[in-house]
Amino acid sequence: MQLKDKILKMLAQAKDASRVLASVSTKNKNRALAAMAQALLKNSRFILLRNAKDVASAKRKGLSKAMIDRLTLTNSRIKDMAEGLRSVAGLKDPVNEVLRQWKRPNGLKIKKVRVPIGVAGIIYESRPNVTSDCAGLCLKSGNSCVLRGGSESIDSNIAIHKVITQDIEKFGIPRSAISMIDITDRKAVEVLLNASEFVDVVIPRGGEGLIKHVTEISKIPVIKHYKGVCHLYVDKFADLKKALEIAFNAKVQRPGVCNAIETLLVHKAVAQKFLPQLYSILRDPGVELRGCQETRKILKNIKTATEKDWYAEYLDLILAIRVVDDVNEAIDFINKYGSAHSDAIVTKNKKAADEFLRRVDSSCVYLNASTRFTDGYQFGMGAEIGISTGKIHARGPMALEELCTYKYVILGTGQIRT
Amino acid sequence: MQLKDKILKMLAQAKDASRVLASVSTKNKNRALAAMAQALLKNSRFILLRNAKDVASAKRKGLSKAMIDRLTLTNSRIKDMAEGLRSVAGLKDPVNEVLRQWKRPNGLKIKKVRVPIGVAGIIYESRPNVTSDCAGLCLKSGNSCVLRGGSESIDSNIAIHKVITQDIEKFGIPRSAISMIDITDRKAVEVLLNASEFVDVVIPRGGEGLIKHVTEISKIPVIKHYKGVCHLYVDKFADLKKALEIAFNAKVQRPGVCNAIETLLVHKAVAQKFLPQLYSILRDPGVELRGCQETRKILKNIKTATEKDWYAEYLDLILAIRVVDDVNEAIDFINKYGSAHSDAIVTKNKKAADEFLRRVDSSCVYLNASTRFTDGYQFGMGAEIGISTGKIHARGPMALEELCTYKYVILGTGQIRT
Repeated sequence: MQLKDKILKMLAQAKDASRVLASVSTKNKNRALAAMAQALLKNSRFILLRNAKDVASAKRKGLSKAMIDRLTLTNSRIKDMAEGLRSVAGLKDPVNEVLRQWKRPNGLKIKKVRVPIGVAGIIYESRPNVTSDCAGLCLKSGNSCVLRGGSESIDSNIAIHKVITQDIEKFGIPRSAISMIDITDRKAVEVLLNASEFVDVVIPRGGEGLIKHVTEISKIPVIKHYKGVCHLYVDKFADLKKALEIAFNAKVQRPGVCNAIETLLVHKAVAQKFLPQLYSILRDPGVELRGCQETRKILKNIKTATEKDWYAEYLDLILAIRVVDDVNEAIDFINKYGSAHSDAIVTKNKKAADEFLRRVDSSCVYLNASTRFTDGYQFGMGAEIGISTGKIHARGPMALEELCTYKYVILGTGQIRT
Repeated sequence: MQLKDKILKMLAQAKDASRVLASVSTKNKNRALAAMAQALLKNSRFILLRNAKDVASAKRKGLSKAMIDRLTLTNSRIKDMAEGLRSVAGLKDPVNEVLRQWKRPNGLKIKKVRVPIGVAGIIYESRPNVTSDCAGLCLKSGNSCVLRGGSESIDSNIAIHKVITQDIEKFGIPRSAISMIDITDRKAVEVLLNASEFVDVVIPRGGEGLIKHVTEISKIPVIKHYKGVCHLYVDKFADLKKALEIAFNAKVQRPGVCNAIETLLVHKAVAQKFLPQLYSILRDPGVELRGCQETRKILKNIKTATEKDWYAEYLDLILAIRVVDDVNEAIDFINKYGSAHSDAIVTKNKKAADEFLRRVDSSCVYLNASTRFTDGYQFGMGAEIGISTGKIHARGPMALEELCTYKYVILGTGQIRT
């Protein structure tokens, strides 16, 4: 069979499976998730063997150390994957929740009901744990998923997929509800991204390059986790001690993640006092500072930030710093250079806070707290499938509810329109 | 200036205006809408003169009578446009509504707040009233709009746009918040559909061809009102009298709209009794019937329905009919051939109703009522900008709330992540 026909057949089966999965009871979905977790633990040796093949091949190809680390599975990482599935089983089922209901003067009863989206195409890079994480979230939210991981983790992904799908039919869930494209040919992704009759939404998980590529060619709606260029603005009326703690936390605690800050803005009235203190606490962990002209008048021996720095997602121990005239300049700067992810203000002034929170056009805006909290668990939503930086359908942490859409159910007694 | 630069400049200004409009008070938005309505009435002569130019040109080009009717404005149609704006002023402002709020164990207070999407690109065909309808809905929901109507109504659109924007600055709303692309060159649309840095969502309003074209080339999320292939299923346990009334209403009351039915499915156990009655009530209004083999055994002198008929959106006095074995066949048929718009079952049987309402994967599913109710006003949502047949962001009637997204506002007291 041609590659295209093979993929389309798989997608059609995933669509059919989604019709079945949409009606599976919460109890059976949870039992399936528990069985999937169990299967991962029971078959960990098999998974590790397959993973070793991927790792060996990655080393042969000379992939980076960071890449190989992301690719490598261990018993403890497999345990985490199983634990992840169990925790999803413990989350509230979003399907069939009545979001609102009302009655019309003609007696029609209208219910707005949460339902699964249908089929989600998940396109990801080297981390093999994404396979079970995404499969679990899609299953619980009643969606079929079609998984397409990176070619460097292909053997690990096939192994994990085989293991987690082996028992789900016992719970009334078709195996095609968790489908995997095991063809590394790039054309397979193109077929997927054009199959709007079978796939309802595409969620790319990975770096900027992957997301740009997917958005460029997809004919299906894409929910993007684009990038995290997050800001902390230290206002004229900031509690500077808190500002220092928050800056340290947001930059240093885990610099490689999307909700870490990349740029710090500081009001000119407090820059002279704040910046030297910031410099001294960031020196120890080895943070490289890059400043605007005004910043460099205060911190004379740091690098100059260029226009490129204001757009940069460093994901590293680097921080760009800019002195601003007031909260309005900070807001405009963030709306111009930021990625609409997470941005924070530290201030005791209500007016500045209100202005910032209302006018910064990002998925999450913080007052006096670290941007590092943008996360499904931290928000109390449970495991997340990504952080949306788009504005359509979902914004910020996307968990089970965001993997659903709704339908209107209208109950009548013979009403016709006059 | 190059066409591309000119359009991009306009879009950048619309984006800037959206930042301002997002903070305009409800009171000022409503006063602006009232002023827009007033201006339409005061300048109706000017608008009618410009419209006459479009109509004359359409006649010269030999456009269809239906097209010329859609294009033609009258005093009464201008009054309707003004009335539309006033009614939008009367609707509840969706912006800044707190959708949910909760507190985390660490003291963080999280609020999920409804906010405007930003900039909406509206691409439409010949009806000039869309200009003021969409401008009003976008303004009330805090979004800038960039309007691009059909070339055949260009003079009317420019006139309406000029009139409705002339006074809005008095209420703190930049004129660029209602922008219009007055260049009929098709390349202008391509520039718009690629400008993802300025435009947040695209809403095409028009026929299948327009929507396909826009979806094909857009790099911006598109909310589609694709087509309405709606069904009525008459179950074995239907009240046949109600079924007849509903069928008549859903097909005949206004056949040219998307929520009229195109196909009727009937359970084999009642077909013999129901179909001759249906035939007799649909003969008078001149409905052409096209049936499957089983149908034609009962109604011998009607045409045969081909595979193409099951997919057809007639928008006309034509009805395809098919006899099915049971509710499951009806559900599968609708999910295969329908357009996920509106579908109804007539039955007194709870099990069949539940099955149908749960498993039919359409934006609106009806029990014992006409599909003609799928409409913003009929649902009590107010004026609509379209009916979404997609599953991402919005489904079914899209009114002010659906023109918004949300953001998370997180209030802290110095919290950092450990």
